[in-house]
Amino acid sequence: MTKTVTASMIIIGDEILSGRTKDANLTHLSLWLNRMGVQLREVRVIPDVGPVIQDTVNDLRVCYDYVFTTGGIGPTHDDITGENIAKAFGVPYVQSEQAFALLQNHYGGEGVSDARLRMTMIPKGASLIKNPVSAAPGFQIENVFVMAGIPIVMQSMLLDLEMRIFGGDKMLSKAIHVFEGESYFAGMLEEVEKEFPQVSLGSYPFFRNKRYGASFVLRSQVESDLDQALEMLKLKIGVMGKECFDGEAEL
Amino acid sequence: MTKTVTASMIIIGDEILSGRTKDANLTHLSLWLNRMGVQLREVRVIPDVGPVIQDTVNDLRVCYDYVFTTGGIGPTHDDITGENIAKAFGVPYVQSEQAFALLQNHYGGEGVSDARLRMTMIPKGASLIKNPVSAAPGFQIENVFVMAGIPIVMQSMLLDLEMRIFGGDKMLSKAIHVFEGESYFAGMLEEVEKEFPQVSLGSYPFFRNKRYGASFVLRSQVESDLDQALEMLKLKIGVMGKECFDGEAEL
Repeated sequence: MTKTVTASMIIIGDEILSGRTKDANLTHLSLWLNRMGVQLREVRVIPDVGPVIQDTVNDLRVCYDYVFTTGGIGPTHDDITGENIAKAFGVPYVQSEQAFALLQNHYGGEGVSDARLRMTMIPKGASLIKNPVSAAPGFQIENVFVMAGIPIVMQSMLLDLEMRIFGGDKMLSKAIHVFEGESYFAGMLEEVEKEFPQVSLGSYPFFRNKRYGASFVLRSQVESDLDQALEMLKLKIGVMGKECFDGEAEL
Repeated sequence: MTKTVTASMIIIGDEILSGRTKDANLTHLSLWLNRMGVQLREVRVIPDVGPVIQDTVNDLRVCYDYVFTTGGIGPTHDDITGENIAKAFGVPYVQSEQAFALLQNHYGGEGVSDARLRMTMIPKGASLIKNPVSAAPGFQIENVFVMAGIPIVMQSMLLDLEMRIFGGDKMLSKAIHVFEGESYFAGMLEEVEKEFPQVSLGSYPFFRNKRYGASFVLRSQVESDLDQALEMLKLKIGVMGKECFDGEAEL
């Protein structure tokens, strides 16, 4: 029996939707989760609008084992993630003494200004997520993890989550590449998938060094299934008189 | 009165969720939509799972004026977007003679193989979206536009949509930058936002050339509101004895 643990991600920010800023957190979070034995199953990008944040969090926290949000926890008026997570959970939004102490320590003599006080507020009952880069913490409430949007800060916050996430069996993956259009291989891919329904098999065309090709990516939580499916696919490609090349360890 | 037209985007593909592939279509689509007078309001990234595709399309097509999907319309077994869009609309999935002719013309003597036949199927009643790069078309059914996931193909398909999208008033934006932490400006940002509730005002911290700073981005469909809000913000920054710099035309 394999154990599957799932997650979703909510990217909060007008700047992503408007095209001004390219999200850089999805890929990083997904690869980190996979190392933790957690599969990212859905991502939503939503605007800085209170009721949308509340509804999205409440939709997703009952569907997945974990929910991760990025963005909207800074010191300015448009940083409204925290207060809306509190509303989503129906708990008061309160000052965290621990967060206040962290900020006071970080800013020293400069002190915690009114604006920075905003970054000491958390939903009642939440625990802090450490921010080694710029002190202002994220927080965890039940299965929801609220993190910064700035990639280097978000990435540093994940370090503090390693002991709070309980993963299942990791998704393993292997890839092979061919230098020919994927449609030539469609029939055999289907056959392999029918023979190994527990192995997910993706076909991704590419155009590299002026040559068309495709990567076939096999994914499974059971290594022996993965190896057998890969062996079968390689055999079929060989029988067809085509060449394939082992891929890097991509997911 | 301003006219607001909205859109959502569905990015379909296990390879995005697994972290293997970085999405490159969100930003391009968003900027294109903005030029068309359409605001991207929500993005969902979902796996290649039939019922999830159906539910997501049916959720979003009633909430937004337009829905755009990317991914899953190629020749292999894992390209299941088309058939599930047909199911979402409750219409048969049928061969398009027009699509067949396009592929036959593109592949010439090589012909339309069984695998490629897959790319001639569309939901009954859909119209094709031209693919100048690799022939295999996307399609439109009602307010849903189904496009390829490969960025260059997706971008080329947008050329064929310019006459099918009816936008509203464009979202205009102006930005200024300061070289100081955003928390110093939090109070005045809030004042400007209260004075101009119809102008959205975002504050985005950055770290560039070893200096901390922040970009303040103002967005509105009414140019005079935008200009007045910007003027007020610049005045307040000046009164505080700080410098600000006009930004590029970013969204």
